[in-house]
Amino acid sequence: MTRTSLGLYGLGTMGSALALNIADNGHTLHVSNRSSSRVPEFLSEAGDLKGNLRGHDSLVTMIDAMNAPRTIILMVPAGKPVDDTIDQIRRHLTGGDTIVDAGNADFNDTRRRTKTLEAAGLNFIGMGVSGGEEGARHGPSIMVGGSKASWDRLRPVAEAIAAKHEGAPCAAHLGPDGAGHFVKTVHNGIEYAEMQMIAEIFGIERSAGRPHSEIGRMFDRWNRGPLKSYLVEITGTVLGATDHLTGGPAVEEIVDKAGQKGTGRWTVIEALKLGQSASVIEAAVGARGWSSDPARPTAAQTLPGRSDAADLPPETLEAALIAGRIVNHAQGFDILAAASKEFRWSLDMATIAEIWRAGCIIRSAQLDTFAAAFRAGPPKGSLALAPDMVAMLKQAVPGLRATVAAAVTAGQPVPALAGALGWYDTMTKARGTAALIQAQRDYFGRHGFDRVDGTDDRHGPWWRD
Amino acid sequence: MTRTSLGLYGLGTMGSALALNIADNGHTLHVSNRSSSRVPEFLSEAGDLKGNLRGHDSLVTMIDAMNAPRTIILMVPAGKPVDDTIDQIRRHLTGGDTIVDAGNADFNDTRRRTKTLEAAGLNFIGMGVSGGEEGARHGPSIMVGGSKASWDRLRPVAEAIAAKHEGAPCAAHLGPDGAGHFVKTVHNGIEYAEMQMIAEIFGIERSAGRPHSEIGRMFDRWNRGPLKSYLVEITGTVLGATDHLTGGPAVEEIVDKAGQKGTGRWTVIEALKLGQSASVIEAAVGARGWSSDPARPTAAQTLPGRSDAADLPPETLEAALIAGRIVNHAQGFDILAAASKEFRWSLDMATIAEIWRAGCIIRSAQLDTFAAAFRAGPPKGSLALAPDMVAMLKQAVPGLRATVAAAVTAGQPVPALAGALGWYDTMTKARGTAALIQAQRDYFGRHGFDRVDGTDDRHGPWWRD
Repeated sequence: MTRTSLGLYGLGTMGSALALNIADNGHTLHVSNRSSSRVPEFLSEAGDLKGNLRGHDSLVTMIDAMNAPRTIILMVPAGKPVDDTIDQIRRHLTGGDTIVDAGNADFNDTRRRTKTLEAAGLNFIGMGVSGGEEGARHGPSIMVGGSKASWDRLRPVAEAIAAKHEGAPCAAHLGPDGAGHFVKTVHNGIEYAEMQMIAEIFGIERSAGRPHSEIGRMFDRWNRGPLKSYLVEITGTVLGATDHLTGGPAVEEIVDKAGQKGTGRWTVIEALKLGQSASVIEAAVGARGWSSDPARPTAAQTLPGRSDAADLPPETLEAALIAGRIVNHAQGFDILAAASKEFRWSLDMATIAEIWRAGCIIRSAQLDTFAAAFRAGPPKGSLALAPDMVAMLKQAVPGLRATVAAAVTAGQPVPALAGALGWYDTMTKARGTAALIQAQRDYFGRHGFDRVDGTDDRHGPWWRD
Repeated sequence: MTRTSLGLYGLGTMGSALALNIADNGHTLHVSNRSSSRVPEFLSEAGDLKGNLRGHDSLVTMIDAMNAPRTIILMVPAGKPVDDTIDQIRRHLTGGDTIVDAGNADFNDTRRRTKTLEAAGLNFIGMGVSGGEEGARHGPSIMVGGSKASWDRLRPVAEAIAAKHEGAPCAAHLGPDGAGHFVKTVHNGIEYAEMQMIAEIFGIERSAGRPHSEIGRMFDRWNRGPLKSYLVEITGTVLGATDHLTGGPAVEEIVDKAGQKGTGRWTVIEALKLGQSASVIEAAVGARGWSSDPARPTAAQTLPGRSDAADLPPETLEAALIAGRIVNHAQGFDILAAASKEFRWSLDMATIAEIWRAGCIIRSAQLDTFAAAFRAGPPKGSLALAPDMVAMLKQAVPGLRATVAAAVTAGQPVPALAGALGWYDTMTKARGTAALIQAQRDYFGRHGFDRVDGTDDRHGPWWRD
C-alpha cells in the first residue's frame, strides 16, 4: 500500500493540539490555516516538533504540495464551514484522496457528504475525537466512520496518536459514513448526563451545609473507588479551587447558566427519531436549558420554592451515582443499538466501550466493566441486563432511590437521577400502567388494543355504555 | 365575497364524522373517497343529512363538478398520502382554490406544501382537528394555519362545526402556514403528558390495594372539582368498566404496551430544536416507549425491582395532578412561544387556550383559568408566573412533592410527575448547580464562563494547578 501524505487544516485549539500529537508520533504533517499568519506562529510554538511539520500559506497550496494519495484532516467548526472547505478543495484532489472531518459534525451531514464525495471518487471519513485540548495533544479517543479502505490508510496515524488503555489504542473503525460521528454524539450525550448527575449530588451536599472543599474531597475519594473517572476527578479539583479575588470557592463565582453546543440535544433528538427515550440525557439537556431560561429569575422570586437540607451519607450518594451511571450508559448504548439497526452499521458495542476507556471525557473504571459485559453478550443486547450489571444495580439502586426521595422532599432538583430511577422502576415491572393509556386511546380514538388472553376483542366495553 | 363550494376527500372514521358534522350544520358538501364503494355506503349512513351531501366517484370528478372557488378538505393519512393527493389534483384546481389538510401533519410538511402551492396561485390551509371521532362529529377544536384570505373563506364552516365554549366557537386562525398543525402537535404532546400523569396516579392507587372501581370513583369525584376535564372523566369511566369475559376490571385485560402515532415524539423533537425541554411530555413519550421495549420482560425478571404500597390521601394526589397539569401546560405554551418567535407566527396564547376549552381531548376547567391568565398577560409571558397560577402552585406543589417522594420510595414509577417537579425545583432557585457544569466545561474544553461579579476573567484557577 502506498503511504499517504498527511495534511491538517485548521490550527485552532483542537487542531493545533492534534497536529502536535501527530508530529510527536513521528509522522510528517502538512499544516495550513484559514488565516495564514497563524501558521508560522504555530510552527514556532511547535519547538522541537517543527522538523515533522510543513507549513503552507493556504489549504490549496498545501494540497498541491502534497503527493497523492493525500489524507486531509479538517479541524474547522461543524456545519457550513465544513461544506465550504470541501467545496473549495474538491477539484484540487484526485481519486483516492481522503478528507477526514475531525470536528463535531451532525452525523446526518457526514452521511450526506460521504455520498457526494464517494460518488466523485474521493474518500470521506467522519472522525469523532474526544478528550478536549489535553486529549487531542496527548491521546484522545477516536471514533471513525468511513470505508474500510480509507480506514486502512488512516489507521497507523490514528492508533499512534490515540490514548492507550493498558496498551490498546482507543481508536477504532466503527462503521461506514456517519457511524463515527454518531457514536461521538452519543458519547457527548452521556457526558452531559454524567455532568448533570454529579452537579445534582453537589447540590445535595451543598444543601446539607458542607463546604465546597469537603465536597471536593468526597469526589476525590470516590475517584479511588468504583466511580473512578475523569469527570469525578475534575469535579474534586474544581470544587477544591479557590477564587483568586474573593478567596471563596471558585465555583460560586461563576454565573449559574450552563452553555451547550448542541451534541446533547442532537443525541436526544436522534434517539427520539429512533424510538428511544434516554431519560437521563434528556434531563441533563433540559437542566442546562432551564438554567439559562430568562424566566428563571422571576420564577425564583415569585413562585414559592423549597430548599431544605438533604442530608445523606456519602455512601448513599456514591451508590446513587453508580446506579445512575449504569442506567445512563445502558440508555446511551440502546440508542447506538437502534441506530446500528436503522442505518445497518453493525456497531460493535464492546469495541465502543473499549475505546471509551481512555482519552475521552467519559472515561471511567465502570466503562471497563461495561466493555466486559458487552464482550460476554448481555441478554437482549441490553447492558443493564448483563449479570455483573444486575449485581451492581441490586447493590446501588437502593442508594439511588434514597437519594431521589430525600432530594425531592427537600426541594433539591435531581431531574437526571430521577430520570434514571423512573426508567428502572418502569422497566422492572412486568405490568405497569400503559394499559390504562391504551384504554383511554381506545375510548376517544378507537385505537384498539391487544388483550392479555390473546382473544380478538380489540375495543373496550366503554363503547356500549 | 364569492361563496366557496366545499368538498371533502377521505371518508374514514374522522372524515366521515367531519362530513356529517358539516352537513348537519346546513352546508352543502361534496364528498369522495379513494375507494369509491365507500361513497354510497357513507351516503346511506348519513340518513336525513343525505340531502346536503353530493357523492362523487373520484376526487377528480368531484373537483370538476364543483364551482370555483373550491375548498377541498383532505382527510387522508399524514405524510406521503397527502403529497400524492395534492399531486393528483393540482392541475384540476384553478387560482384561488384552497386545499385544506385536516390530518395530523408534521408542520414542517405543511410549511413546505404552503410554499409550493402558494407559488402556484393556490391556497393551502393546515388545519388541526382535535376531539377524536366524537369531536369530529359533534364539535371538535379547530386550529387553523394559512393565509388570512383562505381563512375568511373557511371560517363560516369551521366556526359552525366547531365545539362551543359558552357559545364561543373553538376554532381560530392562529397564524400562517404550519401554525395550526404545530399547535395541534403540541396539543397532542400535552395530551400524552396528561394521560401519563393520570396513569401514574392510577398506579399509585393500585399499589395501595384499592379496587379499580374505587379508583374510578375517585376520578369521577375529581371531575366535579378543579380537575374537571375530559381525560379525568373518561378515566373514571374506563376504570369502572368490567371485562365481559372475566368479570374483572376491563383495564387489566389489556396488554400493557402503549402505542403512539408520533405527535408526542414530534412535540419533543421540535421543542428541543427550539431550545425547549418539556420534561413532562418527554417523560410521557419515554414511558410509552419503555412499555413496549422488548427488553422489559427480561428486565422485570432479572433486575431486582421494588413494588411497595404508596398510600397517599386522595387530596394529595389531586393536588399532584393539579400542579402537574399547570407545569405541563406551562411547558407546552413555552414551546408555542418559542415556535412563534422562530417562525414569526405571532401566536396568541389566550386564543389557543380558549379554543382548547371545548371539543379537544385536553379540554379542562383549568384551561379556562389558563386562558384568563394569558388574557391578563403573565410576567415574562410565562403561564406559571401568572398570579393565579402562582397561588395554585403554592397550594398544589406540596402534594406533588409528597406524591413523588412516596412513589419513588415505594418503587412506583412517576416519571412525568417527577419531571414536573424537577422543572419546578430547578426554576424556583435563583442559584442552582449549573455553575459546576460550566466549571467542568472550562476545565476540559476551555469553554470559559461569565463571572457573577461581571469581571472579565473567563477561565478558572484550575488551569494553573
